[in-house]
Amino acid sequence: MRERSFYAWGYADARATPEEVANIEKSLANRFGLTSFNVATPPRPEEIELRAPRLTLPPQLRDFTSTDHVDRLFHSYGKTFIGVRTLMDRKCPNPPDAIAYPRNEDELAAVLDYCTNHDTVAIPFGGGTAVTAAVEPPQTAERAITIDLKHMNKVLEVDHTSRAARIQAGTFGPDIETQLKPHGLTLRHYMQSFEFSTLGGWIATRSGGHFATIYTHIDDVVENIRAVSPAGVYQSRRLPASGAGPSPDRMMLGSEGILAVITEAWVRLHKRPTFRGSATVNFKTFYDGADAVRGISQAGLFPANCRLLQTEEASNSPDAVDQGAVLVLSFESADHPLDAWLKRALEICAEFGGTWEDESGDDELAHRSGKAGEWRAKFIRTPYLAEPMIARGIMSTTFESAITWDRFRDFHTNVMDATRRVMKEVTGYEGSLTCRFTHVYPDGPAPYFTLMVPLSPTSMMSQYKEVKAGFLEALVANGGTVTHHHAVGRAHRPAYDKQRPELFAQALRATKGVFDPKGILNPGVLIDP
Amino acid sequence: MRERSFYAWGYADARATPEEVANIEKSLANRFGLTSFNVATPPRPEEIELRAPRLTLPPQLRDFTSTDHVDRLFHSYGKTFIGVRTLMDRKCPNPPDAIAYPRNEDELAAVLDYCTNHDTVAIPFGGGTAVTAAVEPPQTAERAITIDLKHMNKVLEVDHTSRAARIQAGTFGPDIETQLKPHGLTLRHYMQSFEFSTLGGWIATRSGGHFATIYTHIDDVVENIRAVSPAGVYQSRRLPASGAGPSPDRMMLGSEGILAVITEAWVRLHKRPTFRGSATVNFKTFYDGADAVRGISQAGLFPANCRLLQTEEASNSPDAVDQGAVLVLSFESADHPLDAWLKRALEICAEFGGTWEDESGDDELAHRSGKAGEWRAKFIRTPYLAEPMIARGIMSTTFESAITWDRFRDFHTNVMDATRRVMKEVTGYEGSLTCRFTHVYPDGPAPYFTLMVPLSPTSMMSQYKEVKAGFLEALVANGGTVTHHHAVGRAHRPAYDKQRPELFAQALRATKGVFDPKGILNPGVLIDP
Repeated sequence: MRERSFYAWGYADARATPEEVANIEKSLANRFGLTSFNVATPPRPEEIELRAPRLTLPPQLRDFTSTDHVDRLFHSYGKTFIGVRTLMDRKCPNPPDAIAYPRNEDELAAVLDYCTNHDTVAIPFGGGTAVTAAVEPPQTAERAITIDLKHMNKVLEVDHTSRAARIQAGTFGPDIETQLKPHGLTLRHYMQSFEFSTLGGWIATRSGGHFATIYTHIDDVVENIRAVSPAGVYQSRRLPASGAGPSPDRMMLGSEGILAVITEAWVRLHKRPTFRGSATVNFKTFYDGADAVRGISQAGLFPANCRLLQTEEASNSPDAVDQGAVLVLSFESADHPLDAWLKRALEICAEFGGTWEDESGDDELAHRSGKAGEWRAKFIRTPYLAEPMIARGIMSTTFESAITWDRFRDFHTNVMDATRRVMKEVTGYEGSLTCRFTHVYPDGPAPYFTLMVPLSPTSMMSQYKEVKAGFLEALVANGGTVTHHHAVGRAHRPAYDKQRPELFAQALRATKGVFDPKGILNPGVLIDP
Repeated sequence: MRERSFYAWGYADARATPEEVANIEKSLANRFGLTSFNVATPPRPEEIELRAPRLTLPPQLRDFTSTDHVDRLFHSYGKTFIGVRTLMDRKCPNPPDAIAYPRNEDELAAVLDYCTNHDTVAIPFGGGTAVTAAVEPPQTAERAITIDLKHMNKVLEVDHTSRAARIQAGTFGPDIETQLKPHGLTLRHYMQSFEFSTLGGWIATRSGGHFATIYTHIDDVVENIRAVSPAGVYQSRRLPASGAGPSPDRMMLGSEGILAVITEAWVRLHKRPTFRGSATVNFKTFYDGADAVRGISQAGLFPANCRLLQTEEASNSPDAVDQGAVLVLSFESADHPLDAWLKRALEICAEFGGTWEDESGDDELAHRSGKAGEWRAKFIRTPYLAEPMIARGIMSTTFESAITWDRFRDFHTNVMDATRRVMKEVTGYEGSLTCRFTHVYPDGPAPYFTLMVPLSPTSMMSQYKEVKAGFLEALVANGGTVTHHHAVGRAHRPAYDKQRPELFAQALRATKGVFDPKGILNPGVLIDP
């Protein structure tokens, strides 16, 4: 098994290459005039001292629970600047006391029992890629056990007729696809963290996936959910649809580990696509592109991919929307050629001044070449470039929202302005900022923002938090959601608390009281205890 | 304003014609050998004695609350055999004590305040077409006020850009369409009760609408929900999508008036379709048709209509599945011709032996003629034929479910068998029974069953309940949902209680405690107090 980095993104053997680092430094010089860097070196585990575990493992957990030094380091943080940089600074002030690796629901229930009876916080852990401080032990916890589901990693049943499978929650993206491949089926739920995240994590956080339309969130493909809570097993009925009361699945979707630990789910699958129709369309302005995307999303054409990207130059310009945009458009099907679909979508693009060169009928390779291909390669590689950025004290992050079309332009302008302003005020730099659409709905887009700005070497942690609070606040103050598919956790709470109805928070608290009467599961995530 | 019948379906001036009644009697003679009937005559309001109201209206409610005799009769029952027949029998043992018609949220809040402080049950009422005993005062209530939202009937805002509108919950289907028509937009959420049901009722019961695929439930078009509860106003944020915690909308969708009274919602709209592609396809057996529907639903073609119907003859035969089936298939769009879509769907039909004559490209009239047209006319008129049936002691009702494709044939066989058996055992008659698909998903259909059987003149109420309990039990025992779009209310509780996770019921009870601490809203619906 390839070893994962204990402190940064991804596989330990896949860190940024010297060439990639040189490109980053060149780009930082061009953008920000930075010519020398104080570079934090990669930490070694033994350089970081950990508090001794604050608990003694009872016999019933010993068989599958670890207090190993590296295990505890690896599970101390999700994958944000704060966590990675803290470990690079050779610190880890608040690690979990032990990591349980249950191999089945009985072992999982035993951990929850122990935690319930011993005032111990329990933190469900899938792939650990959270950007919301959702997998970190709370400061106030007297003891904490992280529950890593990596051994519950099987596709248990495949139903070819309905095109669905029962899959254990701890199964990572690639393992899902590997186990489905012999069946000619695929979940096709890809996102940037695909390699390092699990089905249970996707369900708990309402992840967004491959498809730009219809099946955008994991919510849309879940047939049922099974979970273990301190109060017992929860299992909804496997159904293609129902109208019987509020949906038991929707209560668990997005519950971020505060109600129960998800153990398995039936999910809808697809046949591997054999037909594709795709094109890369250029627009004069981002708003022209947005109008075309609106047209396509309201036409009932349902493209698989419909990513509208600002051109690279736009990231340095406050007039970004005038700098042009590229639409990566593709349809896919295992059933039929898509000429009629692509043709009509391109007609709509043309109505808004869109032009294209590389329209492609059924050529699978098309979307891997040209601008779309470049973008795709970058998409997969980007998370690995976070480490050299963080080592140089550069904030490089993303945030996303959703907003109805009528409010989109004001929302976009205001969020871009507010984010640029907070970067400048906090750091003194004109940070870079771009916007793209990752998912689109008939009534509005999901704008996705990428920013980069250097932080002060002496106060980078507080500056990072201040900038992040600034843009999250801007999303919610301008009518959007604090997150389209990155979840809430602890880090997004201040803005989330303004967004959700107060009575909903109370209802969620009452619901938690039923599933988790002692409040051991992920306290502070989504709601206060 | 056309007057509605106070005891039966629909407009008082649209009762079954003598010709329709003659046809019904002829058909009952053919099917069951019935040649003479003991016919209950239409009741007049003054023939039914009502218990005096058990409360004195306080000044703050008097302005908009009625204790009128006919008002109370009209609000005593939904539209099932039990209610209509009880009124035909000149009985109404448990009417609400008063009917409040709030004109705004303040008046609504005043009613809820009064009920909370005076141990009075409050029953939210939209169009009153419930088939689940959800709008009837519970037997145990000391006092009950029904809250009829008919004055909250406006489309408040229309957003052309996002194609959405903010609509008051008490607006009836036709009033929604009339107010949207000048904008060239439509909600297109049609069902058999369209004329006599409201947006708030649809949301509270998770109604199923016009579209056979994608936008099947009202759930799929709601952008936000506003509601008034005893604990205060609840309003979710208007968004095209979100990933921030469990969905606040999904908690209210299907809550059947036990948490709050829905007052308005933003919903997604469509442009009126201008293109259509449709065909009526014949199959040798129902299962051949089902296989074709499965193919279409998994092909990503998303037809607007995809109703698979057993042929009429099938209703009398225990070998119904061998008797042939008709697929009413249509695509619609306001954007593009649908030749490619229809062509591919028909290819799939042909793979399963489907044949058709009246394929039609873009002819709006096509779907109103031929077998599809006949079916449509019958669909709209059918509810009016309930009254003469009920007057003759004939049980004629429908029930629906959803099941994944892998289990569909067994489910279908077992539910058909169990329903035929319970009809025979309870009534002594071989009842008629047919199955169709109203909505389909990639992973399974929503089978919809229609049955007819004569009841004993002396024990029709208990026979009706016994047959109903039998088929609901069969749905759930065979892995389906107790309802795809008719809701749960009180009448479907025994089977529903077996279907939903016990921890979900507890969570729902805890949630109700937050919204409705005194438990005044619809007690007994969905959960026990």
